[in-house]
Order: sequence, then C-alpha cells, then structure tokens
Amino acid sequence: MCRVNDTETTGHNHPADRLLQAVERCAAPVCVGLDPVLERLPMSVRAEVDLPESNVEAISRFSIEVIEAIAAHIPVVKFQSACYERFGSAGIRVLHHAMDKAASLGMQVILDAKRGDIGLTVEHYAASSRLGGSDWTTVSPYLGFNPLRPFLESGSGAFVLVRTSNPDSDAVQSLMLADGRTVAQAMADQLAQAGEGGIGASGYSHLGAVVGATKGADHVALRARMPQQLFLVPGYGAQGAGLDDVLECFNADGRGAIVTSSRGVIYAGGVDDPNWAEAVADAAAAFAEDFGQAVGLRS
Amino acid sequence: MCRVNDTETTGHNHPADRLLQAVERCAAPVCVGLDPVLERLPMSVRAEVDLPESNVEAISRFSIEVIEAIAAHIPVVKFQSACYERFGSAGIRVLHHAMDKAASLGMQVILDAKRGDIGLTVEHYAASSRLGGSDWTTVSPYLGFNPLRPFLESGSGAFVLVRTSNPDSDAVQSLMLADGRTVAQAMADQLAQAGEGGIGASGYSHLGAVVGATKGADHVALRARMPQQLFLVPGYGAQGAGLDDVLECFNADGRGAIVTSSRGVIYAGGVDDPNWAEAVADAAAAFAEDFGQAVGLRS
Repeated sequence: MCRVNDTETTGHNHPADRLLQAVERCAAPVCVGLDPVLERLPMSVRAEVDLPESNVEAISRFSIEVIEAIAAHIPVVKFQSACYERFGSAGIRVLHHAMDKAASLGMQVILDAKRGDIGLTVEHYAASSRLGGSDWTTVSPYLGFNPLRPFLESGSGAFVLVRTSNPDSDAVQSLMLADGRTVAQAMADQLAQAGEGGIGASGYSHLGAVVGATKGADHVALRARMPQQLFLVPGYGAQGAGLDDVLECFNADGRGAIVTSSRGVIYAGGVDDPNWAEAVADAAAAFAEDFGQAVGLRS
Repeated sequence: MCRVNDTETTGHNHPADRLLQAVERCAAPVCVGLDPVLERLPMSVRAEVDLPESNVEAISRFSIEVIEAIAAHIPVVKFQSACYERFGSAGIRVLHHAMDKAASLGMQVILDAKRGDIGLTVEHYAASSRLGGSDWTTVSPYLGFNPLRPFLESGSGAFVLVRTSNPDSDAVQSLMLADGRTVAQAMADQLAQAGEGGIGASGYSHLGAVVGATKGADHVALRARMPQQLFLVPGYGAQGAGLDDVLECFNADGRGAIVTSSRGVIYAGGVDDPNWAEAVADAAAAFAEDFGQAVGLRS
C-alpha cells in the first residue's frame, strides 16, 4: 500500500525527484497504463446504446474507476492519448478529467503521446500536455533533441523513445552505424548528453528514456549508456518480457526504472464481472508487490 | 484560380490521385499551412479579453477566414494540430470545424500531427485523424513502417518524416550507416518499399514523404530513392529554401511534390490591417502563380 501523501512529496519541482518519491511512497517502481478501448470494457460500465457520446462516457467511467481502484497501490499512471483522442473534443475533456483525478490522488501522471516537432510547434504540444496536468510526456527523437526542450519547462519531464518493444522497430532502431553503434545506441548517447543539464537531487535527469525489455540484451547496453536516465519500460507481461529481463533495466541500486503494465491490470476483472474494479485493485496490488520485492523496496 | 469542383475530382478513393487532381484543378502544386498563434493574429479577429474561450474563438475565426480567403487559389491546406491542441477540447472542436470547412470548399486536407505509435494505438490515432476529415496525416518513422498501416485505410494517405528542415535534425537524420547511407536515406528506401503496395492511378503511393529543401542536396538524392512518393516540402521562404531548391523536389515531369508555406501567406496582412484577409488572398494567389508557372502548370 502507498503511504498517504505527505508534504514532503509535494515539495519537489524536478520531475525525476517527484517520480522517484512517488515510487518510494508506494514502495513499487511501477506504472499502470490506461489505454481503454470500448470492446474490452466491463459490461457494467458500457453504454446501452452505441453512440459516440455514450461511448466516451463509458471510457470516462472506466478510467475514473480504474484510477480509484489502483491509487492505493500504484505511484504512476500513464495515459494513452490516442485512446481518448479518437473521441474528438469530448475525448480530450475525458482525458483531462481523468489525468486530474489521478493527480488529485497523489499519482504521478505520464501522457503517452509520442509527440515530436520543431520550433514553436513543440511549445504548443508542451502547453497542451501541461494543460491536462501531466508530469511527463513521451516524445520522439527523430527531429533531434534540442526541439524537445519545451517539454522540460515548468518542472516537467520527457521520456524519449529509444528502443521500443514492437517487432517492427528493429528496421529503424537496430540499423548499424559506421561507428559500430546502432541507431538506438546513438539516440541513447545523445539523450544522455542532452539530459545532463537537468539532473535532480535524486541523480536522475528530466529527460528519461522509453526502453523495452523485449529485444534480447539491448536494454542492458542501453542502461550502461544512460546511467542518469529513468527508464520507462513497456513490454512486461503481454508483450513478452519477463521479470528478469525487466529487472536489468534498473541500476545496481534498484532504482532508475519504472515498469509499465496495462492490459494485465486494467482488464483483470473481465467483461462480465460486476465487481471488476476489485479484480483491478488486486492485480495492481500484486503487480506492485512483485516489483517492490524484486528491487528491494519491500521485504 | 482553381476551377470549380466538378464530379471528376470527387471520384477518386486514392489519396495521391485526389491530391494530384486538386493540384491540377488549381494549376498549382502548393499547400498553405495553418498554424495560428494568438500573438500574430490580426487585431480585428483577436478577443477583447484574454480568456481561453475567447482566445480559441479568435483562432477559430482566423482559421475560417484564412480558408475562405485562399480557397480560390490553393488546392491543399495543412493544419498544425499542436496549435489547436493547446486549447484542449475546445481547440479540437475548432480544428475539426476548420478541417470540415476546408474540405467543403474542395480542398485536400493534411493533418500535421507527426503521430507514431504501435499496434492498436495507431488505429486510434488514425481514427482520430479521420474524425476531423483529413485526407493525409504526417507521421513519424521511428517505430517502423508496418505500424503506420492504419493511417492508410479508408482512402487515407500518410506523409512520413524523412528529412526535416530544422537545423537539429542532422544529429539524427544525417547519421552515417555502415552501408554508406544516411539514416534519412535508409528511411527513404524503407518508405519506398512500404509504399509499393499502394500506388494510385497517378503513379504515386499512398505513403508520401516529408522532405525539406534546406539541407544542401539531400533532397535530390532522396528524390531519386523515392520516385513514387509525393513529397511534402516545408522550408520554402521563412526557413530559407529558395525556389530552385524546392523545384528539385519535383520529378522531371513537374509532378510529385507539394510545396508548403505558412507564415508567408497566413500573416500576409499584418496585425493592424482590417482588410487583412485580402492580403492573405493576394499572397496565396502569388504563391500559387509562382509555383504553377515554375512547374509548367501555368503559362
């Protein structure tokens, strides 16, 4: 169980410090991903009619109930922007409401939006992300690292896509450079350098990295190249990474990574269970327990 | 001036065919970028009070008036999603309204969102893009090309970021691979291959490429690697690419590229001119005339 939020946890204006303090508070380096799709919602929250406004209302109910169910166990929640954007302006309203709910319960909020652009445009995306109340945003490195700076203003952080867990990412991220590095390793080196100017009291940077643990030993080499980056680690469970793989994303002191799980937690109740939220809470508690123990935050 | 829309132009369900037919109809291979920011709006459309709801209303008025001013000259309009997203759900409503307006006046619509993700998430982004009525979406290649497929469904197309016009992009896109290609060239080769399955009657693919003309001769080499890709070409004017640079993005037959201009057109009126929309129309007409002549669509 997470300790009740105290004044200590609200004093930090550095995103890595806040994130790690939330991890300490819940004794679990984990994040639940909220990427709700209509077809998988429990019947008890689904709309009786298939209309856009009733469907987005069902997404809203589900999001809020999941957040309430997991808040006692989980320090960080990640919102998949696309799942809300597909409902247009109503979806954005629901997204921001849910982000606000998570923050009000003391959780750190990641907006998984994978944004990336140049110049002034990035300032608009960063403003949009903060409008919803995010602490961190996921971003793409393809246009370079300098353009990402607006995402780091006002005490915000950004997780840069470095090595993603999907099969198709190899075609880009595993390309071999003339200097012997892969593209992902080159991104890691640039990221480590770009993040040097923003190290918090915790020793970690406001620029983190998305690194999946589904690609052989790639994540081990990337961990060595980015000692001061927090890793956001997808791929546990549904996507095939095991506990041992994921643990290699942490530094030797048991810190430095946040493991995400989505479907394994938010759909734990099944579609027909009217008490589905209890199953979600149980799954969240077990997920937190497993990784809290594995990294030594729980005995 | 564009010809009035006829039945011929509405019969195509392939995005490249639609785009090129729009170019023919207006005798100009050009696109105007709508990326409105409050500080640059003409005083006559600005709100009297600085409140979010009045500001987004000003963005809406400006967007609609620009679209009406340029519709007689310009075949394609590109909406910068971030400029609307920063206003939250109200901004999305304004964006979709403006996209709908452009489509109703016969223009092809590009949503410049630079999205990229994996699996089901891409389907949500693609659904979101179509919800607004886009013909094309800009997307990022960093997670691989297979995940982009949902953006190509229902007669839609996608412009993939290959070589962007910003200075910082060199650090990623100019990295040299062991096989002698740059990262951008490798992306181009993969893009050309991924686009082979979706060639329209025009000979162009539903997968296009964003290629700036501000990087020496990079765009010339990329043109040769992607003969069947439509190029969306930023960087003309404000970002430093000249007419001759940009013309090298076209194929030898004068087709294959769409040149974008934003600030040079949408802010042509200046902030104090109550008749600013006339200046916008004049700038759009001149932009269309310059490139219509340059590629031989006008005498």
